[in-house]
Amino acid sequence: MEVTGILETCLYAENLSEAEAFYSKFPGIDLVSKEKDRHVFFRCGSSMLLIFNPKHTANEQTDVDGQAIPLHGASGAGHVAFSIQTGFLNKWKELLQREGIEIESEVTWPNGHISIYFRDPAGNSLELVSSEIWGIKN
Amino acid sequence: MEVTGILETCLYAENLSEAEAFYSKFPGIDLVSKEKDRHVFFRCGSSMLLIFNPKHTANEQTDVDGQAIPLHGASGAGHVAFSIQTGFLNKWKELLQREGIEIESEVTWPNGHISIYFRDPAGNSLELVSSEIWGIKN
Repeated sequence: MEVTGILETCLYAENLSEAEAFYSKFPGIDLVSKEKDRHVFFRCGSSMLLIFNPKHTANEQTDVDGQAIPLHGASGAGHVAFSIQTGFLNKWKELLQREGIEIESEVTWPNGHISIYFRDPAGNSLELVSSEIWGIKN
Repeated sequence: MEVTGILETCLYAENLSEAEAFYSKFPGIDLVSKEKDRHVFFRCGSSMLLIFNPKHTANEQTDVDGQAIPLHGASGAGHVAFSIQTGFLNKWKELLQREGIEIESEVTWPNGHISIYFRDPAGNSLELVSSEIWGIKN
């Protein structure tokens, strides 16, 4: 018996239309469902990226047949790293430039892998890097 | 070219020793590295769970050879769902009970899958559920 992986990763954004438009620019991040003013859900590889409006999820109790979905909701910049295929960093830089997304930083790690960092419209810090940086097969 | 998955999922906790002790109770969540007062990193399946102290990462600039790692750090309850093998929910309930972790809620979704929810010591909302809830193979 073990935890087999991380199934849902969450970020928070008060403006969900803006978040939806932003994340939809990324091939491989695919809209699954949304609920106005509450959330936008995306599939990404074998897991889910859930963007919640913390004003809603931290305050308004939602339930399923009377069973409460616990409140959650953070403020401040969260962080998510997305894995990209090795060797595609320049193509991603071109995509970000084309979409008007500013690269905040580029970091070359001691093991030679390179991360690029940028922000989503809510200020969350996003990173693109090969999963090999953690010794995880692509 | 596409994003191949979510490589790093973050939660925030000011007390990292407490976070390390807590997450280490879960088979399948394995300590990879830590830096006192800044972070504790775990591997979970094919991705990483990073617990950061937001007092550090939101305020103190870290760099790698002069290249800045962007600041991030949230307050309030974040949320992560971990995938578990289908059919193991009762075994997980036993483990939580044995470890003195209170189940906050149990939700049966319209598709029949069941989620259990509990909190980490920092108040983040955690969920255990089969990945099949999202139509994702276990």
